[in-house]
Amino acid sequence: MPNLERLEHHACFGGWQDVYRHRSEVLGCEMTVGVYLPPQADPAHPRHAPCPVLYWLSGLTCNEQNFITKAGAQRYAAEHGIILVAPDTSPRGEGVADAEGYDLGQGAGFYLNATREPWARHYRMYDYIVDELPAWVEADPAASDARAISGHSMGGHGALTIALKNPGRYRSVSAFSPIVAPSQVPWGEKAFAAYLGEDCEAWKAHDATELVRSATERLPLLVDQGGGDEFLDVQLRPQLLQAACEAVGHPLRLRMRPGYDHSYYFIASFIGEHIAHHARALKA
Amino acid sequence: MPNLERLEHHACFGGWQDVYRHRSEVLGCEMTVGVYLPPQADPAHPRHAPCPVLYWLSGLTCNEQNFITKAGAQRYAAEHGIILVAPDTSPRGEGVADAEGYDLGQGAGFYLNATREPWARHYRMYDYIVDELPAWVEADPAASDARAISGHSMGGHGALTIALKNPGRYRSVSAFSPIVAPSQVPWGEKAFAAYLGEDCEAWKAHDATELVRSATERLPLLVDQGGGDEFLDVQLRPQLLQAACEAVGHPLRLRMRPGYDHSYYFIASFIGEHIAHHARALKA
Repeated sequence: MPNLERLEHHACFGGWQDVYRHRSEVLGCEMTVGVYLPPQADPAHPRHAPCPVLYWLSGLTCNEQNFITKAGAQRYAAEHGIILVAPDTSPRGEGVADAEGYDLGQGAGFYLNATREPWARHYRMYDYIVDELPAWVEADPAASDARAISGHSMGGHGALTIALKNPGRYRSVSAFSPIVAPSQVPWGEKAFAAYLGEDCEAWKAHDATELVRSATERLPLLVDQGGGDEFLDVQLRPQLLQAACEAVGHPLRLRMRPGYDHSYYFIASFIGEHIAHHARALKA
Repeated sequence: MPNLERLEHHACFGGWQDVYRHRSEVLGCEMTVGVYLPPQADPAHPRHAPCPVLYWLSGLTCNEQNFITKAGAQRYAAEHGIILVAPDTSPRGEGVADAEGYDLGQGAGFYLNATREPWARHYRMYDYIVDELPAWVEADPAASDARAISGHSMGGHGALTIALKNPGRYRSVSAFSPIVAPSQVPWGEKAFAAYLGEDCEAWKAHDATELVRSATERLPLLVDQGGGDEFLDVQLRPQLLQAACEAVGHPLRLRMRPGYDHSYYFIASFIGEHIAHHARALKA
């Protein structure tokens, strides 16, 4: 990985929470990534072995810091011996296109490859997450080639769509409060129109509710959704994914959590269950 | 509590993480406070009972957000049925004296009552933590009158000194990376000179290493200290407390944690052990 720089290095639950900055050729800018190495990644650890990797995709406005500082996921990753990789949510910096709103441009990459200007040059988060980032992570002898993916909100959309589009690549997938049908909700309509153009046919390739209809792999989807989420009815609408999964028999476990909102307090409350779910698949 | 306003309300580990703003008469300004109510605080909970309260005092530059968003303490408070109360670290706002540095003025109240100008009017965090805040918290039927106190860095200093100065008031005390001897280190010398004046005799009343020498209650002190803490040798110096405790036979459990730094990644890694320690004392 060219121009790799370690920005942070903190002991945490017996392992290390690091933050790296590196040059992304795919995105044409520098990117920051949080990497948690569990104790088992240390060659001196009595149960040392190459560790499976859980990729975490954050939501709108986030960077690599939100998940690593607020989710409390390191405890569970340490218990299960899983590496956590949490990248920034979009290309950034001078020369990278941006927009006024929080829901388009920097901080809002939507985990796709943009085809329209001014976005097409840098906004290639799909290729970054699927190829460039894991190629770097998995070149480290600490990492095995067993992969899982999860995320929150826009990142839940990213996790679901990327897993559905890449059969065999991820052992498991889960999401918190995902945008399950971006083609049918305001956040997705705005972003997809900008990044992909007005032709809604092109949107289907990045819409989980569309992708399950033709999925060739029956990878179970685990989704947690807060019942008190302020974005539930307009932006998230998990029942659309539920109906699509039922129509084609795609396995979905959708858990509504009464009272929980869209914040990291929700994620923190249930990330342990998600990591246990991924651990079962990653070590099977 | 006059002018009480709830700013935040999040479901979290089966309970509620709230943030309140209220008018403090002692401090002469508005204050923000994080309050975590565990599931057992709900009258509908099968194991409902008035819950003991752990007061958490944060460090330099912090407000009520740092602990509630980064420590991951709610999981353990929910397990043990403990209310967590995390106030801001100083008076704030227009009309409240301040200084250029991060280590004096707003964000740096040092949990004492200032006697010198321009600080004496508002900087009365000792009275706020010992009297005004618990009077409000414990008026709620969700809270029992069993109290514990803990904190980090400047807040570890606050927890140790407040517990030592108030025998019988707290069932247990602990600290992460505390400033154990502020009279002998740069952070403390600067703050105490400003808030209390140049006479070092007045400083002893707010210095844990001095207070243990004359403590009438043998309340055990639990201290965790990261061995990789960037402030260890100049600002924290836990061996000064250790020597003072040994000299008078005051019980101290000082745990050095190799590799850990001064950040919330350290606190998150061991806050579960601290809350278990407090739970044993609070429920004895």
